[in-house]
Amino acid sequence: MNLDATIARLRSKHDRYVSELAEALRIPSIATLPEHAQDMQRMADWLARQMATMGLDNVAIMPTSRNPVVYGDWLRAPGKPTVLVYGHYDVQPADPLDEWHSPPFEPRIEDEYIYARGASDMKGQIFAQLKAVEAALAEDACPINLKYLIEGDEEIGSPSLEDFILANRELLQCDVVLNCDTGIHAPHRPSITYALRGLAYFEFEVTVPDHDLHSGSFGGSIRNPIHVVCDLIAGMHDGNGRIMLPGFYDAVRPLDDEERAQLREAPYSDADWLALTGAPALYGEAGFTTLERVGARPSLSVNGVWGGFQGEGAKTVLPARAGAKISLRLVPDQKPAEAARQLRAYLEQNAPPECHWELRTHSLGPGAVMSRKSPYMQAAVKALETVFGRKPFFRREGASVPVVGMIKELLDVDSIMLGFALPDDGIHGPNERQSLPVLFKGMEAYIHFLAALDTIERAG
Amino acid sequence: MNLDATIARLRSKHDRYVSELAEALRIPSIATLPEHAQDMQRMADWLARQMATMGLDNVAIMPTSRNPVVYGDWLRAPGKPTVLVYGHYDVQPADPLDEWHSPPFEPRIEDEYIYARGASDMKGQIFAQLKAVEAALAEDACPINLKYLIEGDEEIGSPSLEDFILANRELLQCDVVLNCDTGIHAPHRPSITYALRGLAYFEFEVTVPDHDLHSGSFGGSIRNPIHVVCDLIAGMHDGNGRIMLPGFYDAVRPLDDEERAQLREAPYSDADWLALTGAPALYGEAGFTTLERVGARPSLSVNGVWGGFQGEGAKTVLPARAGAKISLRLVPDQKPAEAARQLRAYLEQNAPPECHWELRTHSLGPGAVMSRKSPYMQAAVKALETVFGRKPFFRREGASVPVVGMIKELLDVDSIMLGFALPDDGIHGPNERQSLPVLFKGMEAYIHFLAALDTIERAG
Repeated sequence: MNLDATIARLRSKHDRYVSELAEALRIPSIATLPEHAQDMQRMADWLARQMATMGLDNVAIMPTSRNPVVYGDWLRAPGKPTVLVYGHYDVQPADPLDEWHSPPFEPRIEDEYIYARGASDMKGQIFAQLKAVEAALAEDACPINLKYLIEGDEEIGSPSLEDFILANRELLQCDVVLNCDTGIHAPHRPSITYALRGLAYFEFEVTVPDHDLHSGSFGGSIRNPIHVVCDLIAGMHDGNGRIMLPGFYDAVRPLDDEERAQLREAPYSDADWLALTGAPALYGEAGFTTLERVGARPSLSVNGVWGGFQGEGAKTVLPARAGAKISLRLVPDQKPAEAARQLRAYLEQNAPPECHWELRTHSLGPGAVMSRKSPYMQAAVKALETVFGRKPFFRREGASVPVVGMIKELLDVDSIMLGFALPDDGIHGPNERQSLPVLFKGMEAYIHFLAALDTIERAG
Repeated sequence: MNLDATIARLRSKHDRYVSELAEALRIPSIATLPEHAQDMQRMADWLARQMATMGLDNVAIMPTSRNPVVYGDWLRAPGKPTVLVYGHYDVQPADPLDEWHSPPFEPRIEDEYIYARGASDMKGQIFAQLKAVEAALAEDACPINLKYLIEGDEEIGSPSLEDFILANRELLQCDVVLNCDTGIHAPHRPSITYALRGLAYFEFEVTVPDHDLHSGSFGGSIRNPIHVVCDLIAGMHDGNGRIMLPGFYDAVRPLDDEERAQLREAPYSDADWLALTGAPALYGEAGFTTLERVGARPSLSVNGVWGGFQGEGAKTVLPARAGAKISLRLVPDQKPAEAARQLRAYLEQNAPPECHWELRTHSLGPGAVMSRKSPYMQAAVKALETVFGRKPFFRREGASVPVVGMIKELLDVDSIMLGFALPDDGIHGPNERQSLPVLFKGMEAYIHFLAALDTIERAG
């Protein structure tokens, strides 16, 4: 593989790549909002065009029960490993809109960052991987086989992906997955995620009166569903930050001393974490460090709560209903379906008899732990070290990439997490951004990763 | 006073009155929503036109710092009592709009009810009083002096009324207030409210991170402001439904046995209360009956709560902030300003150090207890008994009419609560309605009230 020429080519295209990325970021591909259904299709079309133009074979927009998967492959390296590249082209909703400094779907470049919804999570990442391969193909220098699975439903929990993979098992066969939906610790401090938390997402609603009441005439004599929701949420943690769902910690694998020691090697400081979040103080489960809390311990977050009057001014209403969206981040060994049962059991035990309640599951995705010693992982380590000049450290990630556990289960292959987001990119919040210098280094790292895979003996 | 002719005249105008009331109900005079500022003016104009047309003197739309007061008088009965009629022309917001069976500002008549926002609270009531006087004036039969104070800010806590009364003390001088913002127990069971709870309305907001975070990356390491809001709300009551603000019950006057016995005389059943609300069970402070809970005990209601993602689907956000609207219903002797201090003290003692919080006061209005034995109260009793054929019973009302306490304080006169709403009119909620037969009986009761006042010796 002609590494130098490939990298030189890539560097020469900097400005064209930035403007192409901006094209992708202008499409508001928000999977969760029905009004953006056409944008989902536009985004899939855009990706398919990119993939066909760069020379991939069998490019196809493949339907699912939700948004389509964009597929493509390059299988002209017989005897060499086959890598299934995973990404997603959907993005989170952009609200709260009034906190963005520029419109979320009008990319803006400032201080070498590109600001837009999806810049970091993850149009930027999948774009970087595609451009690395584009440069390699242009130099006739792609040493291994590639398949692409780019879905459009990740931010809503990949509800159709399992069926898609099952229906296309043959097509998707591979030696390893390259999952680009991830990042590194800092611009000069590469890292590799080897563990991901699972995600189980729910919504519950409590109803007491069957219509809104006047809080003066009835307040004090009828349960207020807002109070019920708050009582239930408050009871989900004890004073030490432990989650009170019955049996919730039964399957949680304790951290051994070796892993705790390794996690402590990660560059981390409370001051950095506070600066990143703007919070006045840290808080979490007693007895664990921050990195253990987010990487190796489960958590429960209420992602939304509502009830009654939220407008300006005052309305004296005792509302009929109130509700909340709740997500559980699960560590490996905790089964999402089991956690769902535990949440239901908690509500059954704790919801008062003066209300009706309903619990709905949005998505259930398992966590994953990957081997730190496989040759694929070592290829990623080498690629990062070459480009960033420093050995990456291993980290456990608090966020969830449910597809990793799903692919392990369905195709029995591990994933390598290799992507170039940064912790302060503001993903899922306002003013999401991606560092352009880091993204271009990322493109080079993807090229070195391809080169390192060239030397691997295929298993089986 | 020619009672029979006045009542005959009133009965003959039934259909005209209904269509005039519908006119008033078509004006969406929602004081709390800035986009309805022009409707507030339209509604004040409509009232002033009515008052001038029926023959009142000195009709004027008088500015305040918020919405204007509509004033008018009829002072041609020298030596007779002067009654200040109080009402308000603003209404509550109409949300949730999708639960109305017909648009809230397009009055609909069905089964002798008129459905519209404000039909019962209280355009219907003030309209009935005006029509009673219109009929009396047309028959040259108004035996006493009248002044009108109809404000436009009641549903937002009458923020400008105190200044208005202070600035117009002379103009508003009177012997008694007739407050029409009230109702009776049932169509065939008249009642008079002699006690009202006070209302103190607040909003608080909790901030932890300074921007929305990804709940996977940060969940478990940073306090979630939704959890803080829920913890704080949950802690405001104990397991017996008692309010946990420090010192909250210190000033609450205990109910004596005589008053408890009298309250038990009111027609009330749990089954009726449940049917009225649609709740699966009752709930409230241990040791008190439902009527005691709403009439003679304070309550705390969260009227709104918000935070994070409330849209369809799933968003894994750990939001920057969350908040709630909270109102306290206070019994007489509880000072609203003191209750505000108690709420602040509770938040100071219980808000965790990992958050910022802010408490804002919307309004503070005291409760009131009125004499059941005054000649004015006895005139109201007589009027109701004449028209409904049954002696009214006395009740304590859970809702608040802060103007009663305010006028007592500023003008040193008591109020008589005489109005014709019904408990199941659905005020403040969807499908608010007013029984038309009860409203027309109410008009007759207002005429009998005028007649009964004619016989009262003026105090002083």
